[in-house]
This record gives sequence, C-alpha cells and structure tokens, in this order.
Amino acid sequence: MAAHVIEADAVVIGAGPVGLFQVFQLGLLEVQAHVIDALPYAGGQCVELYADKPIYDIPAVPVTTGSGLIESLLKQIAPFGPQMHLSQQVASVQRQDDGSIHLLTTKGQQFRTKALFVAAGVGAFVPRGLPLKGIAAFEQTQLHYHTPDLHALAKRHVVIYGGGDAALECALEVLAHENTHRPASVTLMHRRDVFTASSDTQARVQALRANGALRFAAAQIAGFEARDGRLAALNVLDSEGQSHALPTDQLLVFLGTSPKMGPIADWGLAMERKQVEVNTENFATNVQGIFAVGDINNYPGKKKLILCGFHEATLAAYGAMPLIFPEKKVMLQYTTTSPRLHALLGVQTPEKK
Amino acid sequence: MAAHVIEADAVVIGAGPVGLFQVFQLGLLEVQAHVIDALPYAGGQCVELYADKPIYDIPAVPVTTGSGLIESLLKQIAPFGPQMHLSQQVASVQRQDDGSIHLLTTKGQQFRTKALFVAAGVGAFVPRGLPLKGIAAFEQTQLHYHTPDLHALAKRHVVIYGGGDAALECALEVLAHENTHRPASVTLMHRRDVFTASSDTQARVQALRANGALRFAAAQIAGFEARDGRLAALNVLDSEGQSHALPTDQLLVFLGTSPKMGPIADWGLAMERKQVEVNTENFATNVQGIFAVGDINNYPGKKKLILCGFHEATLAAYGAMPLIFPEKKVMLQYTTTSPRLHALLGVQTPEKK
Repeated sequence: MAAHVIEADAVVIGAGPVGLFQVFQLGLLEVQAHVIDALPYAGGQCVELYADKPIYDIPAVPVTTGSGLIESLLKQIAPFGPQMHLSQQVASVQRQDDGSIHLLTTKGQQFRTKALFVAAGVGAFVPRGLPLKGIAAFEQTQLHYHTPDLHALAKRHVVIYGGGDAALECALEVLAHENTHRPASVTLMHRRDVFTASSDTQARVQALRANGALRFAAAQIAGFEARDGRLAALNVLDSEGQSHALPTDQLLVFLGTSPKMGPIADWGLAMERKQVEVNTENFATNVQGIFAVGDINNYPGKKKLILCGFHEATLAAYGAMPLIFPEKKVMLQYTTTSPRLHALLGVQTPEKK
Repeated sequence: MAAHVIEADAVVIGAGPVGLFQVFQLGLLEVQAHVIDALPYAGGQCVELYADKPIYDIPAVPVTTGSGLIESLLKQIAPFGPQMHLSQQVASVQRQDDGSIHLLTTKGQQFRTKALFVAAGVGAFVPRGLPLKGIAAFEQTQLHYHTPDLHALAKRHVVIYGGGDAALECALEVLAHENTHRPASVTLMHRRDVFTASSDTQARVQALRANGALRFAAAQIAGFEARDGRLAALNVLDSEGQSHALPTDQLLVFLGTSPKMGPIADWGLAMERKQVEVNTENFATNVQGIFAVGDINNYPGKKKLILCGFHEATLAAYGAMPLIFPEKKVMLQYTTTSPRLHALLGVQTPEKK
C-alpha cells in the first residue's frame, strides 16, 4: 500500500514562535505551509517552559507570557490556515531525484516539498524517559509515555506515574471509560501527595480517590520485575523508605518533556556545536532547499532571541521563493498599503482620503 | 561662551520604531541613549504617514496602527528614561582626537559619544517648503514653517497657510494670545473651505471665524510682492480664479512634511543608492562608532520592514558594547529569567516554583 504523500509548498519543522511566524511570512508570499511538531500543541519552548512566565523583549509588546505570545501568533497566522501535524517528529529527510525533499514523520506521514524550514529551537520536546536500565524493552507494549488505546488497559493493573497535569488527566481519562474498558486496578503514583496541576483537575482526581476508583501511592519507582519476557511488577520505594512490589501490567509515565535534537544531525547540514550554519542573506543552510531559523542556527553576531528569529524567518521566506515558485516575480509589499495582502489577510483595504 | 556638550553613552538619530527599539536594547545593556529627531514628537514615518493606518506584520501583534505601534514602543522603553531631543536635526558629525564623535544639532545642542546609531529611515521629516522662487529670503524674519514667537506678530498682518491640524492649531494659538500680542489681522488661507483636522479643532476655528476674530480666504499663493527688501503682500488666486493682493507681514506655512536625507551623505559613510552599507554581524558602517539600522541601511537580503529593523537594532546594541564599555564582559541575558534585567525594567522577578 503506497502511503499518501502530501505535496507541500513548504514544510516548517517546529511550531514555536519562530516556526509560527515563518508560516506568516510564507503566507504573505502566498505559500501554504505545513508545520510539524513533537508536542501535541503549538508553542514549543514558550508553552513547555515559559507558559506563564513574563517576556518583556518582544518589540512593541511591553509584556506578555510564553502562552500569550503563542496565542497572538496563532491569531496572526490564522488567515493562512496552516496545516499542523502535531505529536510527531521528522524521522527521515531524503533528497529526491527531482531535487525535492522527501520527509517521513514518526507517525508515518510523508511530505514532498521544495523548501524545508528548520525552526527546531533547542530540539523536539519529547517525553522524559524512565531512567531504569532495561525498561525500554517494554515500550509500546506495557510502557507508554502517553495515554494508550484504552482497550489495552482492560482487566489490567495500570500504574500512572507522575504528578503534573498530564498524569492526572490521564487518570481521569482512563477512569472515565471504565464501564467499557475496566482495568483490574488503577494506581496514581507520585513521590509525594502534592501535585502541580490545575485546581479543577486536582479536585476531580480527589473525588475518584475518595470513592475508591483510583488508588494513590506516594512512592518512586526503583526497579521492576519481569516474568516470561513481560513486565510483571514494579519495585517501589515509599515515602518512608520502605520497598514494595506492585503488580503492574501497564505503566503510563508522565515525567514532563525535555528537548532532544533528534536526527537533524544526520541530514548533511553544516553544523558547529549543535548549531546549523546559515547564510544571513536568506538563512539557507549548505543543503539546497533547507533553511534554518531561530535558536537552532548560527552566524556571525547571532543572538538567541525570539525577535531575531522573526527577522530570520522573514528573509528565509523570501530566500526560498526562487525554489518554491521559480517563475514568480517577488516584490516586497506592505501590509499597510497592499490590497493584495489585505485580501490574503481577510481584512478591508482602508479607503483613501 | 563654550556651549554645554552632553557626554552620551550613545546617541540615536531617529525616533521612529527602530530608533525607539534601539533605545530598548541599549537600555537592557545598561546604556543610556539620547535620541534626536527632526519632528516635534516621537514616531517618525509611523506617525507622520501611517498614524491611523493598519499594520499587520509586526510579529505577535495581529493588528495595530502607526500611532499604536509607537505608543507601545514608548511604553516599552519608558523604564530606560530616554532623553529626547526633538524638532532638530544633526547638522554636523565630527571625529574627535580621542576617537569619540562630536555632534551638533540645528538647535545648537552638542553631544560627544562613542556610539552613534543612525536610525534615520527615509530621512528627516522636515516641513514642505513653499514652492515660490525668492521667498526663501524671508525665512526666519517674515516666513516661518512653525508658530513663531508671538511678539513678532503684534500689530502685523498675519497669514496662516494650510488646511491640516498644524495650520488650524497655529491659528488657535495666535488668537489665544491676542490680548497681549494682538496682530493687525489674522487670515487662515487654504485652497478650499475643507480641512483635514480633528472635529474639535475645526469647531473651535469655526467659532473664531463666526465672531470675526479669524478671517478665512479660499485661495492659493501664486506669488508675492516685496518692498524695500521686505515681504509686503501675497498675490493669491481665489477659488474662482481671480487674483488679489493680500497685505502680509508674517506668513506661517503648514504644508505638511517630507523626508530629506540631509547631511548624512557627508559623514564619510559608504553608501549606495542613498542606503548606508553595513556589516550584518553588528550593523556597523565603515566608520568606526557609527551604526546604521532600519530603512536607511543596506546589506545582502535586506528587506525594508520594521521587524527587520528590530533585529538590526538588537545586534547593533551588542556590536557597540566594546566601544561604549570596553572593560565590560557582555552576556546575553533573558528578560524572562534575569533578575538584573527585571531590576532595570522595574518589574518583579517571579518567585520560583
């Protein structure tokens, strides 16, 4: 079965602030962009690390927050209807005979494009792994870093490990469907009985604990036991320093995310100290058709600031036009005065005085 | 008398959006900037040409206007208390023996600085001159492009020429003081009896016309008569095509502004097609200590966009630090996390979770 390949004018890797503004500048040039991000939502570092922290140096925005910045950018790019491909990473990048670039993501989505914009920041935010030797063997069968298909949990001893929103929301979701896929038991485990989650979520979890549907263990995972090649139990250390064996069939782990550069290092890009070298005229890399913008790139004078990424994305959009639309004559137009840009943005052209 | 010379860490020429953001980035680096602009207010092109027109491409600002953008930037730079020197242009730039730069403005203000940032856009917005051969001879005595000292108008026939806010506000100001400096007559002249000014201003002008304090002539200036080396009368053409002589002692002209590059071309800067060539590492020009940012500069890939100027001003601020504070080790700090920057910005450092 030949999988569907999306023919894309442009693909942007990374839905952080610079990737989103890349979509905007491409949109003004009438280029429709597809965006790929490892997280299940747009925003990158801004929402993953600084969602509610203040930012003071976005020009003409005296103060915002990570999530406020992303909300504004999503509103700004909305007229261009960007296609978002979330919760997946680019697994491979290959040059085709016709010069185009073929991309395959970890969800099996394929793209063919003339222009690839790498706005990958400090890397893809992927779930932090459980630091236990040998446990990776159970990934995708008995160990998950997301909420798995609920069928897999029926009649099983399920342990949900973590103390943040993601862990608590997973517990709520698993128990919301227990009439159809009732597990043998559901245990929420966190090192202490204190959570960093919204008060509403915490209240709903408390209610499930109070009525006995959800067990809670104040403990940490110290090891595991396998039987016949299957995960059978966790060795946990409770808050008083006591060891226990906890029968476990399905282990769902939510320890937050950390950025990983991933396979970008294998794409043939000229790099130094994990930064991609670019030409400041158009933010092109040494590989035809691949541009790098934002924190991932480097050039003389580079400062890792969001506002610099906005500039880089702008020049990269213009720089890619000869590849995307070789026939088109590209002119700089102003959003204040151009009726063509007003039509693209879906706004009215003001009447002349 | 030796005039006072301001010793400035940095001088910025131009109070448009890029000049204002230059102040911000210098402020984060603890450099206090002085700003010079030809207009009597901050904003440059944004307020002079686009005050109420929409702008859609400021990153993370889905829509603003020229004046809205400037208001936001003034708010953002307020913590750094920039010193504004308005209604004046730089008349001369001279290198001193110690390597510093000496500036003299058209108002006689002098500065000595190690770092000069030219954010002059398309040039200084200066009043449009009256296009009449020979009339310039009366400038500063009988012809003014601003409201002159009101003493000069007492007992004189005053003509105010123009149909915008500036002309109408001048008429209001002249007549507000007529008890102490009563002119012989005050005539507002515009080609037709239609004005482009705020409705409040128009209403106040109408009231003065109704009570006879202010005369109005729907006419254009076609020529003038001089007697004994003095301006004596204007030859005006009324809306029906009739010529008249209008006795005139003082002529106040408000025909708007137009940008003029001025003497920048004489400072030894490498230029091509009226653009200053810069190094994209630090936006330095070929002249030590002079940086150029925003629409006035040029480099490979240059786009004349405000957001690009923000980036350029940022790298220029860092680029100038070795000249301004040679001893200081400069580190990039983030406004989200740096307590030092929070202190400079006058905001609280958020508590750690």
